[in-house]
Amino acid sequence: MDLFFILLVLLVATRTFGEVAERLGQPSLVGELIAGIVLGTVAAQYTDSFPQIAGLGQSPVFDTITDLGMFFIMLFAGVELQPNRLIEYSRGAFAVAVMGMILPMGLGIGLGWAFLPASDAFFAQTLFLGTALAITAVPATVRILMDLGRLESRSGQIIVSAAVFDDILSLILLAWLTAMIGADPASGFAFGPLALKVLAFFAITITIGVFVFPFGGRFMRGIKQREFEFSALLVAALAFSVLAELLELHFIVGAFMAGLFFGRKTIDEPAYDDVRSKTSAMTFGFLAPIFFASVGLNLDFSAVLVVPAFVAWLLLAAFVGKFIGAGIAARAIGLTRPEAAAVGAGMSARGAVELVIADIALEAGLFEVMPGSAPVVEHIFSAVVIMAVLTTLVTPVLLKRIYAGIPP
Amino acid sequence: MDLFFILLVLLVATRTFGEVAERLGQPSLVGELIAGIVLGTVAAQYTDSFPQIAGLGQSPVFDTITDLGMFFIMLFAGVELQPNRLIEYSRGAFAVAVMGMILPMGLGIGLGWAFLPASDAFFAQTLFLGTALAITAVPATVRILMDLGRLESRSGQIIVSAAVFDDILSLILLAWLTAMIGADPASGFAFGPLALKVLAFFAITITIGVFVFPFGGRFMRGIKQREFEFSALLVAALAFSVLAELLELHFIVGAFMAGLFFGRKTIDEPAYDDVRSKTSAMTFGFLAPIFFASVGLNLDFSAVLVVPAFVAWLLLAAFVGKFIGAGIAARAIGLTRPEAAAVGAGMSARGAVELVIADIALEAGLFEVMPGSAPVVEHIFSAVVIMAVLTTLVTPVLLKRIYAGIPP
Repeated sequence: MDLFFILLVLLVATRTFGEVAERLGQPSLVGELIAGIVLGTVAAQYTDSFPQIAGLGQSPVFDTITDLGMFFIMLFAGVELQPNRLIEYSRGAFAVAVMGMILPMGLGIGLGWAFLPASDAFFAQTLFLGTALAITAVPATVRILMDLGRLESRSGQIIVSAAVFDDILSLILLAWLTAMIGADPASGFAFGPLALKVLAFFAITITIGVFVFPFGGRFMRGIKQREFEFSALLVAALAFSVLAELLELHFIVGAFMAGLFFGRKTIDEPAYDDVRSKTSAMTFGFLAPIFFASVGLNLDFSAVLVVPAFVAWLLLAAFVGKFIGAGIAARAIGLTRPEAAAVGAGMSARGAVELVIADIALEAGLFEVMPGSAPVVEHIFSAVVIMAVLTTLVTPVLLKRIYAGIPP
Repeated sequence: MDLFFILLVLLVATRTFGEVAERLGQPSLVGELIAGIVLGTVAAQYTDSFPQIAGLGQSPVFDTITDLGMFFIMLFAGVELQPNRLIEYSRGAFAVAVMGMILPMGLGIGLGWAFLPASDAFFAQTLFLGTALAITAVPATVRILMDLGRLESRSGQIIVSAAVFDDILSLILLAWLTAMIGADPASGFAFGPLALKVLAFFAITITIGVFVFPFGGRFMRGIKQREFEFSALLVAALAFSVLAELLELHFIVGAFMAGLFFGRKTIDEPAYDDVRSKTSAMTFGFLAPIFFASVGLNLDFSAVLVVPAFVAWLLLAAFVGKFIGAGIAARAIGLTRPEAAAVGAGMSARGAVELVIADIALEAGLFEVMPGSAPVVEHIFSAVVIMAVLTTLVTPVLLKRIYAGIPP
């Protein structure tokens, strides 16, 4: 694979479209997604002329680059956020997360009931639609809030905390789903072990973050090697990511937790600002644009042409479910009406985590086309990808409008 | 591949060994190489326990990470160096480069004559040995000089310029070698087209660097996107790397040239310092240690056991050839005796470029073991790898001693 060529094309395209988006008053993330959609559409039309771009979806090397992108986005979000403020809002955020999952989940199952034909896979497919709608993409949401400068606002912190809870809940849903798709339907789904793993992950990372990080910070003052602080942050984030994967959680949760406990008090203030600015360069200057372009690259419009009604209902369910579910919960925990609207809109972005889950379902054979099966089954994957990209695209535009009415 | 686990292990090992090396008064590069050797040896012994590390040599994903490492090392070296000072020394450096290649090349061919059995591949194998000894590894040399704080000294600039010339000359040698290994020995080697390509590369990059970069710097002042300057440097380096590959040069030459023309005058001074420090973090805090560990990981000791005399002669030729060849040229262009010794020692590191070339020869079938072929043919590859790692390991130790006697 022509790595440098691909990185060059994606970086030029995303930064150009990002600048256009900013000049039009939109977050640059919108431009980056559109850059990916444009490149993907052009490459799909002219596969022979752009073989490098057209083949990216199947490239493990490119997957590595986008994984590193997610890793840095979550790490930087953690570095930006203050753990004590997250804890302060966590009870409310949990309510937002749960309500923001139940309603879209119900809508997804309803849609499945209405559109999908009866088959052996019917229940699993329906559950997949519910899961697909229930997800909130943490990296996308965090990036949008950072672009708008609202990450550290009250609603911003609630959105991020709720999105992290959502992420964990959706991983539990995914585990349930994959257990259902699996060969033996009688074995059922063991909720207990998974919940234990989630608890173990947070117990370990919080303990290390609170007790070991400050110790490590003091230890580092004696080290003279170049860029040691930056390496130390990476080592912590990599270690937490490996731990998350060992416990069957997504690695982004690990990167986020490592960043969260790396604060002004861990090392001295100038060193903190230095490491923060270097992490920001890697994220916004290199890997994040490429990651968001990759979300856009995956867009496949076929479902719009074949099953337009299904796509329309799916999109409606995606927005209404999150907006009303999370919004009502936000009102209930005492946020103002515009803040609640911001929370409702902010939880709508599905981003790339959705694509990961859709991919797992696809590979598990959930959408296998049987003779005589309905076209809707054949196009569930495309419809879900369209939903993921569009929600990620529309969320920043919506949020910008809503935040225009809320004083910083 | 368990990307995060591998990055974690390599980063912890390299930074730990690097710190030990510094405490023992050696450059941290030495520690990073040893970390790679230790990990590689342990993983080779216990393949089942460490499948992730043992399989790294065959992983395209890990190759991508090490390619990015080389890219950032060369980019940062370019950013650190001043083009006008390099030009000032370039005539002398060219003499050093040519003399520093001819002698080791001759010694390599002599060794081939003495040790290799007659066969159809004899001439190509002999030429390979000559090429292998003639190479200087730019990334390794640059890193050593940076570790020692001598990159901007007179001898440092000569070493780097000569190493860059060497790199280009050895690519020409490599092209000749691969043409010889290729199917049709009658077609010969066309020197003309390759020389034209080299000229075209420098004409294009220098023109862009001198005339377009300052224009781009002024243009960027109007851009408000986050981390745009860092992206702009990456885009320039990626574009030059792609150009280099199109013209059949190694991409590191492109990354280096892009860094070289990115100076204090391209953008304003604070922005330059900011981008420089961010590139440094990516290089020294993340990718360079992993790259140097990968050089150590490749070590395969089998040749030491089977053909020890050949390995000993190869090592002797590697050091003596470069030290005397480049050293005499350095004296001839007016350097002091200790400076000439520094140049001679500094040009000895072969690093990973050697491994790349050895790999190309291996894949082209140059060391194919025929029935009844000599054990030395079977172990040329291992011997060359040992030579590459040991020269890279010993060079910083030697250079540190020599520079101790030269006032900064």
